[in-house]
Amino acid sequence: PAWALSRGSVRPAPRRRGGRRHAEVNGRKKTFTELQTERLEQAERTVLIKCPSKISEKKLLQYLSSHGKINSHFFFENRGIHALIEFSDKNSIASLQDVIGIPGATEHHVVPFKSRLFTFTMKNLVAQAAAETQIRLSPQSHIPVKDLIQKLCGADSISSQMYTLLNEYQLTEENIKLRYLACSLVSDFARAYFPDSVVKPFGSSVNTFGKLGCDVDMFLDFNEARKHIKKMTKGPFEMEYQLKRLPSERLATQKILSVIGDCLDHFGPGCVSVQKILNARCPLVKFSHQPTGFQCDLSVSNSIAIKSSELLYIYGCLDSRVRALVFSIRCWARVHGLTNSVPGAWITNFSLTMMVIFFLQKRSPPIIPTVDQLRALADDEDRHVIGSYDCSFVSDLSKINPTKNTETLDELLYSFFEYFGSFDFRKNSINLRKGKEVNKPESCPLYIWNPFEQDLNISKNVNQPQLEKFVALARESAWILKKEDKTQRMISKEPWGLAALLIPFGKNNPNTIKNRAKGIGSETIKSLLDSLKLSNVNNLQKAVGK
Amino acid sequence: PAWALSRGSVRPAPRRRGGRRHAEVNGRKKTFTELQTERLEQAERTVLIKCPSKISEKKLLQYLSSHGKINSHFFFENRGIHALIEFSDKNSIASLQDVIGIPGATEHHVVPFKSRLFTFTMKNLVAQAAAETQIRLSPQSHIPVKDLIQKLCGADSISSQMYTLLNEYQLTEENIKLRYLACSLVSDFARAYFPDSVVKPFGSSVNTFGKLGCDVDMFLDFNEARKHIKKMTKGPFEMEYQLKRLPSERLATQKILSVIGDCLDHFGPGCVSVQKILNARCPLVKFSHQPTGFQCDLSVSNSIAIKSSELLYIYGCLDSRVRALVFSIRCWARVHGLTNSVPGAWITNFSLTMMVIFFLQKRSPPIIPTVDQLRALADDEDRHVIGSYDCSFVSDLSKINPTKNTETLDELLYSFFEYFGSFDFRKNSINLRKGKEVNKPESCPLYIWNPFEQDLNISKNVNQPQLEKFVALARESAWILKKEDKTQRMISKEPWGLAALLIPFGKNNPNTIKNRAKGIGSETIKSLLDSLKLSNVNNLQKAVGK
Repeated sequence: PAWALSRGSVRPAPRRRGGRRHAEVNGRKKTFTELQTERLEQAERTVLIKCPSKISEKKLLQYLSSHGKINSHFFFENRGIHALIEFSDKNSIASLQDVIGIPGATEHHVVPFKSRLFTFTMKNLVAQAAAETQIRLSPQSHIPVKDLIQKLCGADSISSQMYTLLNEYQLTEENIKLRYLACSLVSDFARAYFPDSVVKPFGSSVNTFGKLGCDVDMFLDFNEARKHIKKMTKGPFEMEYQLKRLPSERLATQKILSVIGDCLDHFGPGCVSVQKILNARCPLVKFSHQPTGFQCDLSVSNSIAIKSSELLYIYGCLDSRVRALVFSIRCWARVHGLTNSVPGAWITNFSLTMMVIFFLQKRSPPIIPTVDQLRALADDEDRHVIGSYDCSFVSDLSKINPTKNTETLDELLYSFFEYFGSFDFRKNSINLRKGKEVNKPESCPLYIWNPFEQDLNISKNVNQPQLEKFVALARESAWILKKEDKTQRMISKEPWGLAALLIPFGKNNPNTIKNRAKGIGSETIKSLLDSLKLSNVNNLQKAVGK
Repeated sequence: PAWALSRGSVRPAPRRRGGRRHAEVNGRKKTFTELQTERLEQAERTVLIKCPSKISEKKLLQYLSSHGKINSHFFFENRGIHALIEFSDKNSIASLQDVIGIPGATEHHVVPFKSRLFTFTMKNLVAQAAAETQIRLSPQSHIPVKDLIQKLCGADSISSQMYTLLNEYQLTEENIKLRYLACSLVSDFARAYFPDSVVKPFGSSVNTFGKLGCDVDMFLDFNEARKHIKKMTKGPFEMEYQLKRLPSERLATQKILSVIGDCLDHFGPGCVSVQKILNARCPLVKFSHQPTGFQCDLSVSNSIAIKSSELLYIYGCLDSRVRALVFSIRCWARVHGLTNSVPGAWITNFSLTMMVIFFLQKRSPPIIPTVDQLRALADDEDRHVIGSYDCSFVSDLSKINPTKNTETLDELLYSFFEYFGSFDFRKNSINLRKGKEVNKPESCPLYIWNPFEQDLNISKNVNQPQLEKFVALARESAWILKKEDKTQRMISKEPWGLAALLIPFGKNNPNTIKNRAKGIGSETIKSLLDSLKLSNVNNLQKAVGK
């Protein structure tokens, strides 16, 4: 059947993809919630240990095993060697903590907060013996673009290049564990006062589209606590907690975040650069968590952001081409300065991801379903109405029919650039619920409907010059892919395919229009532009709505 | 023997005196530490419940008993009726908390911090039935001076008046329980982050000299946590907690108090007017705890303040005349504006207490031992050197020989005024360690040696006018006591004895020198002053060092 064929032609996602190994339960893929619950529980059984640079893995594990069985562990480098140790039973941590000392020499000048962050030291003799063996370190950041390009040149197809990029950039199993641990450590702070609360990651850490090194977005969830609301005894009596009352939920959120921010700042080992941004639309606390090496953003439960994470998770799991294309496009956009880590008029990674998903919804046959189709598959348990917004969609991946589309990533990459190189941004907006272009409801340069809050444009920040730059680069990239002679380039050891797109155009890249103009004359360029369905350069500006 | 006689003549302390009922263990009086440990543990088994104004005591206790045995309980009025319930087992609280709801109607606008403060409500029918019975309310404040004076007039001796005053003003058993509960509730906040810490009361709440309505001084004690310092495993490995390090202990104290202050402010039900005073010599957080009705001062462990509390506890327990005289002198000083609740040049209650203790050390035979004598009785366990200061003294009251002094409080009150009315403040200082007057080491108007920090003057704040006022009032009071005709006054229903001293002099009081001067002429006054060992008014100023 068509499907079996397509499976064959699509390269399977690489082994290192985070969560994949644990992604199945009873033969079906785990739902987002199941996976998150499992990982949160795992993180609670986990400790982080700073080790001497010369460490005997065996000795450390032996020592720790006296407190209980170790489920998994790995080492990584982050201002020294660290070991993440996942015990099989939470009680092992209490047993371990019981024999751990508070640094003595400076006893008066420490804040005696006991976390799950320890320092391990060995006496000299042991250290010397340990030095003989080498420990394997899990990488926690991706390779530089320069090295990536080198690697891509050795691949045998653009598809293969795209999977290589995905494999190098995506979160690893180890990095995901570290992210959940960071949340769990912050949970310890929140739980001190709100025992039923949980700190959960959302966004790129969990939506399958996170890149190694990206920030950890986390939120404090009181929903567990709310389950106990109005749990009264029967009979003529009622007993309630006396609680601090506040005029608004926003104020409660601000106060809770403020105190937890101070706790992290004053008590949290390795929590530095704590910034409270409490007057933002969504109040948050930013901080740098040195033990795990993450930049973290802590906010309070934002149901729509969580549903957005789950929606992306669904799309990311449905077909391996989705993530490969998204990662490639994002990397391309970053190289060319279309995206930026500081806020501004740039296209965001989230907007780019939505554009890729929209593009894949529009293929024929579609590679992934529209949000409305996912909504139609939702059962009663999937029903979520948040405020006035319907955020329901199917959570069980097995209910979604696999695609019959067998296009290769080679084709899809080219088509993506071709599609958006000629998209009528002036007139049309991108609507993922319906999976089709609709008239813009208001005159923004780029309009992408928020899939849940349908009255919001997720790319409102993008200005006309940035959109024009995107379109120009998309056209340029399509041109390069179309025209290039792969064999010739491989022989002359020049970057080809995806690699050629990851070199800034117009610099030392012989592929750029500017350079080409010198050699082949404007007539040739004109005919090339024609082949991209554009009769002249003016059309470009028309297309983007100038 | 003289002692038996003295016991007979000294009226026993009244029943309501806080802690007395629990003050014995194996036939000997409990030490300060034993009593404090017991009360802290009691407080942890205690909850506070806000009740409807019409409450059935029986129904409430029935309801609560389903969660475990109740050891003791009482009701009091404080912005509505409250019940303090002491369970016999701490687990009863967990069982109760498990069925208690979070107020539903305002769920989004509360801070869901679960404390041991509850609100109890009854449905209408039950409430009506309950209305038939009346509950007994424990008073948590003392009677006004006006009412006290009335009460004192009905007594049959000045001694009896002084015990009546003590009985009305001292902390009750119930009020002490409430104070320990307030500390225990604050402990819950501190323990959230520092599980080995304890919040303990010190000062007037525990030194047997506290008056109903006085502030609760409490401190956060990390000493329990420090016991775990350097508790390492054997062998070649060491494991330590990663902790936030700070350049000074003071900074650590400030940060911890700051966060706990914010927690109380933002999460603590009924914690209002939270003020952080972190730049003081002893950083502290002031707050008003509405559920118990106390004004609280939270600081971090101050060992010398605690030893001072224990020293006063020893003196207060040794002989019932000590507290009776201290309470009477303080009440007298307050009425005449010698003391004030705001800081300033006024004599403090602590200084006044020290003066009374010094006076009692100086009696012949002494009523209480000197600090050096208590130091000599100390055994190895009592040894406490804090910084460079020796704070050792005996903790076991049974090791201290009872006094052979049989003076009545009538005599002691008069002698106190006489003694300080003619004390050479210009030359001498008050030293409780030695129990004798010694040359002033520096020229302060009033110099009272700190019993532990021997280089500090506890009454450094007192200025010359305040000291002169004290001496003048002492002389005036001695004069009144000496001259008055008790029988005549009782017949004419005029305040007599202690009561006469608690009416501001020089107003409508016919006893004052000013008024007397009109009637009896300055010659008479002169001879009266002579009887107070002063040849003329100038001597007064000389005596106080002008």
